[in-house]
Amino acid sequence: MRVGVLGAGQLGRMLALSGYPLGLEFRFVDPSPQAPASKLGDHIVADYEDPDALKRLAECDVVTFEFESVPVKAARKLAETVRIHPPADALGIAQDRLYEKTSFRELGIATAEFARVDDEASFRTALAQIGLPAVLKTRRLGYDGKGQQIIREEKDADTAFAALSGVPLILEAFVSFRRELSVIAVRGRDKDTRFYPVIENEHDAGILSLSRAPARDLDERIRREAEDYATRLLDRFDYVGVLALELFDLEGRLYANEIAPRVHNSGHWTIEGARTSQFENHLRAILGLPLGSTEALGPAAMLNLIGKVPDPARVLDVVDAHLHDYAKEPRARRKVGHVTVRAPDAAILEERIQTLKTLLL
Amino acid sequence: MRVGVLGAGQLGRMLALSGYPLGLEFRFVDPSPQAPASKLGDHIVADYEDPDALKRLAECDVVTFEFESVPVKAARKLAETVRIHPPADALGIAQDRLYEKTSFRELGIATAEFARVDDEASFRTALAQIGLPAVLKTRRLGYDGKGQQIIREEKDADTAFAALSGVPLILEAFVSFRRELSVIAVRGRDKDTRFYPVIENEHDAGILSLSRAPARDLDERIRREAEDYATRLLDRFDYVGVLALELFDLEGRLYANEIAPRVHNSGHWTIEGARTSQFENHLRAILGLPLGSTEALGPAAMLNLIGKVPDPARVLDVVDAHLHDYAKEPRARRKVGHVTVRAPDAAILEERIQTLKTLLL
Repeated sequence: MRVGVLGAGQLGRMLALSGYPLGLEFRFVDPSPQAPASKLGDHIVADYEDPDALKRLAECDVVTFEFESVPVKAARKLAETVRIHPPADALGIAQDRLYEKTSFRELGIATAEFARVDDEASFRTALAQIGLPAVLKTRRLGYDGKGQQIIREEKDADTAFAALSGVPLILEAFVSFRRELSVIAVRGRDKDTRFYPVIENEHDAGILSLSRAPARDLDERIRREAEDYATRLLDRFDYVGVLALELFDLEGRLYANEIAPRVHNSGHWTIEGARTSQFENHLRAILGLPLGSTEALGPAAMLNLIGKVPDPARVLDVVDAHLHDYAKEPRARRKVGHVTVRAPDAAILEERIQTLKTLLL
Repeated sequence: MRVGVLGAGQLGRMLALSGYPLGLEFRFVDPSPQAPASKLGDHIVADYEDPDALKRLAECDVVTFEFESVPVKAARKLAETVRIHPPADALGIAQDRLYEKTSFRELGIATAEFARVDDEASFRTALAQIGLPAVLKTRRLGYDGKGQQIIREEKDADTAFAALSGVPLILEAFVSFRRELSVIAVRGRDKDTRFYPVIENEHDAGILSLSRAPARDLDERIRREAEDYATRLLDRFDYVGVLALELFDLEGRLYANEIAPRVHNSGHWTIEGARTSQFENHLRAILGLPLGSTEALGPAAMLNLIGKVPDPARVLDVVDAHLHDYAKEPRARRKVGHVTVRAPDAAILEERIQTLKTLLL
């Protein structure tokens, strides 16, 4: 069986590493010749909409994507001739913050107040409706904190609008939250649905820096709400595969922030920390195989390596730390790898996290 | 960093799968174009002694081997220009049952009585010395029960000798043992040495079929003896990397049977069943990185897939079962994959083993 993947980044690399044991082969389409998954399958170096590349991808038994900004058109084109999971619709929603938040609202999933901004007039209307503080965001192609401007006071409004205008925008109420959580769901072709333990995420300058799983002191009601929200999205899209939902924890209430219709950075700890990794379960799902248990093996954390990979000897000297180097060129603010660390209990986990943090400075 | 590997079989495949996360790349030499590791690195399709192939392997940062019958000459040649672990000497000993058993004796490691057989005269002398029952074996290239003849009665002797003569032989006393055990050790460049839990192995028609880890009802004294034997071998060879030692458990006494100077089939459960897999630890060792914990995560077992891979859906339907398909052509008596299964306790593990066994019939 051959799996086709749109994108050959680190997510594609980790999908392939978990797929070879299942007897799978991989074919990637990615315009970057040095993409991290390049050595782990046939890599077609081409634009995502290149007709020849898509034709060769359609020769695979099933196609998936690992890059969120893959053109929806390419996914729809593929869907005409080959099985593709998750559905192109979910990709489309995830690429546009306005559609995403509108979908949340339609599905009864709580989210921050928001309004569409197309020009200065609609920006003024949105400001009046949402109030301050607020966040002005580009609807498309925002990630790792890019394409966002916080408007705390009236006087910041013009600068924020000037910085982002020219593309479709969305104004969102600024949510003061206790922490960010994420829930990762996986649904098989037979609708069997499982959830990894809810994850707690820390960011640094807009980039995910640390995920702890399971989230600390998580109310059972909050966990159920997170899973319920994810289920509504899975149902809405007739979803197959892994879906991640990012949530703000507002002291007992959850606001959905965004979805990722793919394996997710906050789930990388599952490689060593769960009974089945998110990568293996995504492949099992899209291939119509039975899903594996999503239970955690114990407390675990994931630290992103941003900019550069520290000395592997020092990382691996930390008990139960596992290094994941994506073989990417070092570059400021770039995710070049991650470290998973497990521990017998939460206190020891915190010690190990602290030790690892000092190596990442 | 690039790791060169002599051999591109399933062991090379699993080494590569555990090495990519460490940021490693792989270069294999193996004469078979369809070798299981072929898609996981540069594969130089050449004989193990091909000078050009060895030259290209010597360009790697470190070289190791995954195939036990690699010519010692090739390993020695490589050792002149590149770091190679484990040492070529250990390879030489493991390839010859007479040298192997002689080494055991020299190191004070208990083993069955044995005698060298070069011709009919020495065969008669050996029979008189060892007595019956005995096993006549080729000194070299015996594996999975091949190249062996059991002599139970005087009248079987001529047939056995006729079947094997023409190559150097060894006659060994037939040992009636309770079970076969193996101990897998790993030693780093800094001499840090760790042992995986002792493993209990079952064979079917001479081929390893099932490994349970940790071994059931293992006396603490026996565990220490197994580790002591392995340590003597590590010391003798100035060893770096993973070493496996197969042992017969004679109700409270251990006899060493053979060594494998490499990652070992009875250690495949460590991929999902131990805190660090034997593959990752072998790489950490040969690269001079700190070793990871060799502790088991709980009771686990490994079932070899011999001849063919069963329906993946049925295998993965067993809770906590993980499939490892080596992408080999099905063929009678060929190891084409394995399944690891974990369980919360020994009784549930036995149930899961039984379920899996019915799928392998």
